Amino acid sequence: MKNFLLIPDSFKGTMSSEQICTIMGKATKRHFPDAQVTSIPVADGGEGSVDAFLQAVGGEKVYLTVQGPFGNPMESFYGILKGNTAVIEMAACAGLPLVGEDLHPDLTTTYGVGQLMIDAAKHGCVTIIVGLGGSATNDAGCGAAAACGVVFKDKEGRTFVPTGGNLDKVASIDTDSLDPRIQNSTITTMCDIDNPFHGKTGAAYVFSPQKGADPALVERLDANMQSLAKVIERDCKVDVQSIAGSGAAGGMGGGMAAFFKSQLQMGIETVLDTVGFDALLQNTDLVLTGEGKIDEQSLRGKVVIGVARRAKKANVPVVAVVGDIADNVEGAYDEGVSAIFSINRLAVDFKVAKTRAKEDMDKTIDNLMRFIKRMGL
Amino acid sequence: MKNFLLIPDSFKGTMSSEQICTIMGKATKRHFPDAQVTSIPVADGGEGSVDAFLQAVGGEKVYLTVQGPFGNPMESFYGILKGNTAVIEMAACAGLPLVGEDLHPDLTTTYGVGQLMIDAAKHGCVTIIVGLGGSATNDAGCGAAAACGVVFKDKEGRTFVPTGGNLDKVASIDTDSLDPRIQNSTITTMCDIDNPFHGKTGAAYVFSPQKGADPALVERLDANMQSLAKVIERDCKVDVQSIAGSGAAGGMGGGMAAFFKSQLQMGIETVLDTVGFDALLQNTDLVLTGEGKIDEQSLRGKVVIGVARRAKKANVPVVAVVGDIADNVEGAYDEGVSAIFSINRLAVDFKVAKTRAKEDMDKTIDNLMRFIKRMGL
Repeated sequence: MKNFLLIPDSFKGTMSSEQICTIMGKATKRHFPDAQVTSIPVADGGEGSVDAFLQAVGGEKVYLTVQGPFGNPMESFYGILKGNTAVIEMAACAGLPLVGEDLHPDLTTTYGVGQLMIDAAKHGCVTIIVGLGGSATNDAGCGAAAACGVVFKDKEGRTFVPTGGNLDKVASIDTDSLDPRIQNSTITTMCDIDNPFHGKTGAAYVFSPQKGADPALVERLDANMQSLAKVIERDCKVDVQSIAGSGAAGGMGGGMAAFFKSQLQMGIETVLDTVGFDALLQNTDLVLTGEGKIDEQSLRGKVVIGVARRAKKANVPVVAVVGDIADNVEGAYDEGVSAIFSINRLAVDFKVAKTRAKEDMDKTIDNLMRFIKRMGL
Repeated sequence: MKNFLLIPDSFKGTMSSEQICTIMGKATKRHFPDAQVTSIPVADGGEGSVDAFLQAVGGEKVYLTVQGPFGNPMESFYGILKGNTAVIEMAACAGLPLVGEDLHPDLTTTYGVGQLMIDAAKHGCVTIIVGLGGSATNDAGCGAAAACGVVFKDKEGRTFVPTGGNLDKVASIDTDSLDPRIQNSTITTMCDIDNPFHGKTGAAYVFSPQKGADPALVERLDANMQSLAKVIERDCKVDVQSIAGSGAAGGMGGGMAAFFKSQLQMGIETVLDTVGFDALLQNTDLVLTGEGKIDEQSLRGKVVIGVARRAKKANVPVVAVVGDIADNVEGAYDEGVSAIFSINRLAVDFKVAKTRAKEDMDKTIDNLMRFIKRMGL
């Protein structure tokens, strides 16, 4: 073994993807000091995604002042990766932690996200990745679109920037006025959930309560989303409700598709494309991936399976090192996972296990590397 | 991989060594249908040891009537392995389950064990393995010795068969009268504990309470052991107290050493010798062993380490598949363990884990075999 590729997801609430890469890397080097170890911390689009991409690919972090969730000026950031690709996490100016106790999903805006996009385009970026997740908003991305030139008008023909609480006032949408630099860019949206735009499994019903909506507001937000969807269908020729993930980030998934013609993509696919994973595989003897729990949900295309599918095509073995291994995940082997090892070394429940996770990860990789070395691989 | 050798310890309270061999064997065959899989369930000397040896080596089970714990006639058994070796588990006629609620470590005898030994010798066995463990007795093996011809006399010169309650009445011991067939046999005693004959860590103090002794009786049994030790030292020229394990099985460890000149040996060493482990290793690609928990105690020479030490000499890789992996067991790698995998697939505590142990063992071996196969081993 000469070339190891580390590409783990975070273990939610326990270890970040970066931390896992560090632990995996050290334990690998302990037994293969001369090996080439490439670390790709995986971003899921949420908080920390920009840093993860910068660490994986290299590039620079750009800081600038944009509008925060309530239109207030705030310092935000995005990343410019090598190769004129920008990475934006919407949480950097429309994230839930930014509003503190001031929870008003009817009033908050994604306007700043659009400002980050415009700035990236001004910097010459022709590919713009927008990570969804962790939002304080329910504006269906109308704020971001408005910042990029899309015009929303009410029935009196007055232009306004809609927020969750007044999406029902949108009477017409004009996307022709979208900034040409944005029009000419490829916009990719990272989105790991598949909730629809509205309805009981939509943005308002599922996610707005955690953003502060009471039941009455949930109903109103959902009704507003339905209203907006009709206008979008008429003016943008997009049936947002039918797009899996359109309900992500307060409907911003749908907005990205409708206003920016962006494709919604599983985060891992975006990461794999951006880092040039297929090319990296050509020079890889073993891929180490992982996630907090591998289960039937994972099999639908989360990090481990996303990685495994591509590695399988390249005929590179993949070891998944995980927290829990659910029952009935044998399908993972068919997808290209060569082996799955849990970091659970003691029969203790998660409360205790999480306090030991870092050491257990180190020891699990240490053990695996000893085995690989002993077997002469 | 063409030749697998399975030699796990039991997971106490969860799976017997035989059960583990079966699970390991099936999971191995699933991925290596043409492989030779040799199973050696490990006996520790206690209940089930005869069956384990018979399964590992082949042979016949001999049934006969001997004296039970209270001198009552009962049907007992031992095994004759291929090669004129007998295996006796003392629990088969002096075991704690045989007395039920009738707990009297002062009155119970190992006499039947001696009868089994004599019968084995009559059947032509020249090597006799006596497994200690699970005893209802505290007679220091005097009963077994008496059945084989050793003469115990009180101070009036009357011959008697001592039990725990009257060991202090032993005034002289004559081992010259030991049955010649026994004298000419090699007697090996399986003993995995190292408690001394008497004292606070000795047979009476540590083990007799679970055999029904109240504090007063514990003291009396211990005093009796001290008294017997002096007579043994004078008449048998053996300092039993200094022998690690002489306190095993109600002092039978000491009695085996003193009356039969038997060596006390870790159970795993006896198993390895008896099955011809070193020869088997010559034709083995991978050894699978395991135990319920690998910890610092294990490093002192229990099953996993006993197996690993020999495999290391033969340069055969050893995978230990265990329940829990304690911290600070890195020493196991130095002893020859190539890798240690836990069957804990979920972060749940032992109460839950034990209910899933069999499936988790199957899945853990299944995963390991997939990995080995995928890596082209």
